[in-house]
Amino acid sequence: MENFVYYSPTCFVFGKDTERDTGKYVKRFGGSKVLIHYGGGSVVRSGLLDRVKKSLNDCGIPFVELGGVKPNPRSGLVYEGIDLCKKENVDFILAVGGGSVIDSSKAIAAGVVYDGDFWDFYQGKRIEEALPVGTILTIAAAGSEGSPDSVITKEEGMFKRGASGDAIRPKFSILNPALTQTLPAFQSAAGITDIMAHLYERYLTNSEEVEVTDRLIEGLLLTMVHEGPRVIEDPNNYEARANIMWAGTMAHNNSCGVGRTQDWNSHSIEHELSALYDCAHGAGLAVTMPAVFTYEMSHNVMRFAKAAVRVWGCQMDFEHPEVTAKAGIEALRNFLISIGMPKNFEELGAKEEDIPKLVDVLCNGDGRTGSISGFTTLNEDDCTKIYKMMV
Amino acid sequence: MENFVYYSPTCFVFGKDTERDTGKYVKRFGGSKVLIHYGGGSVVRSGLLDRVKKSLNDCGIPFVELGGVKPNPRSGLVYEGIDLCKKENVDFILAVGGGSVIDSSKAIAAGVVYDGDFWDFYQGKRIEEALPVGTILTIAAAGSEGSPDSVITKEEGMFKRGASGDAIRPKFSILNPALTQTLPAFQSAAGITDIMAHLYERYLTNSEEVEVTDRLIEGLLLTMVHEGPRVIEDPNNYEARANIMWAGTMAHNNSCGVGRTQDWNSHSIEHELSALYDCAHGAGLAVTMPAVFTYEMSHNVMRFAKAAVRVWGCQMDFEHPEVTAKAGIEALRNFLISIGMPKNFEELGAKEEDIPKLVDVLCNGDGRTGSISGFTTLNEDDCTKIYKMMV
Repeated sequence: MENFVYYSPTCFVFGKDTERDTGKYVKRFGGSKVLIHYGGGSVVRSGLLDRVKKSLNDCGIPFVELGGVKPNPRSGLVYEGIDLCKKENVDFILAVGGGSVIDSSKAIAAGVVYDGDFWDFYQGKRIEEALPVGTILTIAAAGSEGSPDSVITKEEGMFKRGASGDAIRPKFSILNPALTQTLPAFQSAAGITDIMAHLYERYLTNSEEVEVTDRLIEGLLLTMVHEGPRVIEDPNNYEARANIMWAGTMAHNNSCGVGRTQDWNSHSIEHELSALYDCAHGAGLAVTMPAVFTYEMSHNVMRFAKAAVRVWGCQMDFEHPEVTAKAGIEALRNFLISIGMPKNFEELGAKEEDIPKLVDVLCNGDGRTGSISGFTTLNEDDCTKIYKMMV
Repeated sequence: MENFVYYSPTCFVFGKDTERDTGKYVKRFGGSKVLIHYGGGSVVRSGLLDRVKKSLNDCGIPFVELGGVKPNPRSGLVYEGIDLCKKENVDFILAVGGGSVIDSSKAIAAGVVYDGDFWDFYQGKRIEEALPVGTILTIAAAGSEGSPDSVITKEEGMFKRGASGDAIRPKFSILNPALTQTLPAFQSAAGITDIMAHLYERYLTNSEEVEVTDRLIEGLLLTMVHEGPRVIEDPNNYEARANIMWAGTMAHNNSCGVGRTQDWNSHSIEHELSALYDCAHGAGLAVTMPAVFTYEMSHNVMRFAKAAVRVWGCQMDFEHPEVTAKAGIEALRNFLISIGMPKNFEELGAKEEDIPKLVDVLCNGDGRTGSISGFTTLNEDDCTKIYKMMV
């Protein structure tokens, strides 16, 4: 096991009606003037935003608002948020929404206290300082509520890139599974897919001997396999929603990813799809993962066989472990299709003729030099083949 | 799933040679004058204490020392530590040792800033304030390095009781698996047993529907079943030690115990054994758990059958699930014996004639009123029967 530092100081406040404690937690973590950052109208229509504002008012905490975050959040709104926070002397960013809103909030939080262009952080500069961020999560998916990461898309060039730093880990995250009960089935399924991808990216390692991490990941994947279809079948199943929400947080706060290398090639390959076509990240991952895994399989057949046996209940073929490995990837693919995810470029709204462009941005855009690297190193030729497998 | 707050802000610094960074972390978490608290001679002989002191010296952090913590740590030394800290203006407690040293350190940390008798906290008063605590762990067992808990034995009456509060969660815990390689096999096995007990206590719930928590616990138990024997066979197996050390921390920082009730009857019943006979807590648990579980089994057969199938690989008997449940408890018992744990009172050094005394202190001592309560409620009669099953 490789040396690591694991530090996840986020306070998770989980359960029904917990958003009513927002003001209390903002106060506890030092906020005195808040930016409420959110997306579209659903948090307004559902009354969530009103409950949050009431809680802040009850605690005597003034706030300003900035809505309009889109899926695959853009740099333009981040700049706007930074300006607003500076003008209004905001000292706490409150994200009310899903991963996009949280990521946008983190970018604003880092940008407000930074003299340069916040995009520097998305080109590799570590985030060392930021305003405190709190979140009220409305979709179980990205895991951003417990992670030190943020992904933003820059309008010029449509580069979708990530930034990282403990400073942007949320101080608190309010997780009320009931808030996710109104999500359309497609969004629920995309969230489930994203969570499973976070687990697979951590499972595909080149390090040896971290059985504890394997077991925890498998446990969370098994939870998703069990609870996912229940949520699709009955959106109001609170218990299933709750299981998925906590699994989603645990899947990405890295408690289940320590002590070894990780993959993240599927995420990189998908990011170009959602950046270009503005598709749901999870939907993109549903098409991407089976292709990437099939392509990467020969790099370590036993890794895929292990997942096949332990997560998907495949019988181990001891003479031909690649048969088992493949069956596991196929089981993942069928599961994702069964919960309503797309299976190819066409269903995703992607176009074969764009592949050269996708590959070019992926492998050469924004500082990269001809390849991406995780579980395996993939050059332009590899990535072209992988995208073609998705057609 | 029941509402919960999960807050585990400890910074875990994991891996080889990490104790050399002690000074850096004390500084980061605000320490300027340290009490180094430890147990017997092993941390001196191994050179660990010297390395820790060197790291503090290199960072210009002055310190005083208090050794002599015994297994099942006593209140006497806690009072001594509190006095020493007040006299020397200590503002940071550094525990170098196992669970006993860490628990003693936490008691001192809470006592220094409290006007009353620190024992108040061990009679039910919540710990709201304490000096910061850091730990350098030398045995994977108690999980105290990531928990808000402390257990101390009061010499007068030999009451062994616990206290709790986020204020005594360690600010950082340095986890170097190599430090555990010199442990005698018996102590390693006792640690493994303690970790497994922490998982079982969380598994035995009266709440429904927290599949994610079941899966995480099962994953950690499976890790223990796989790695435990490897450590007993080869004490220098770093990878196995590392897996067990991280599993031990995860088993008790409550990331795998949220959203439902827990048991802890086995711990209560065992505490009287280690308080009276000064046996290793883990060894006591090895004798206690199979008896308690057999006694509690009928309360929810399916819970034990689930563990039997998923952790111990038992075949499910769908007509007679109690057969499967029992097979799982038997498998646990055999596993613990196989790693060198005692199986009954005699091997533990306990005496049948003491049972009335054990039951009386357990059920009536120090504020209790005739019973203990967890997965089931156990009165004096129940507890007598359980202790007799261990003979």
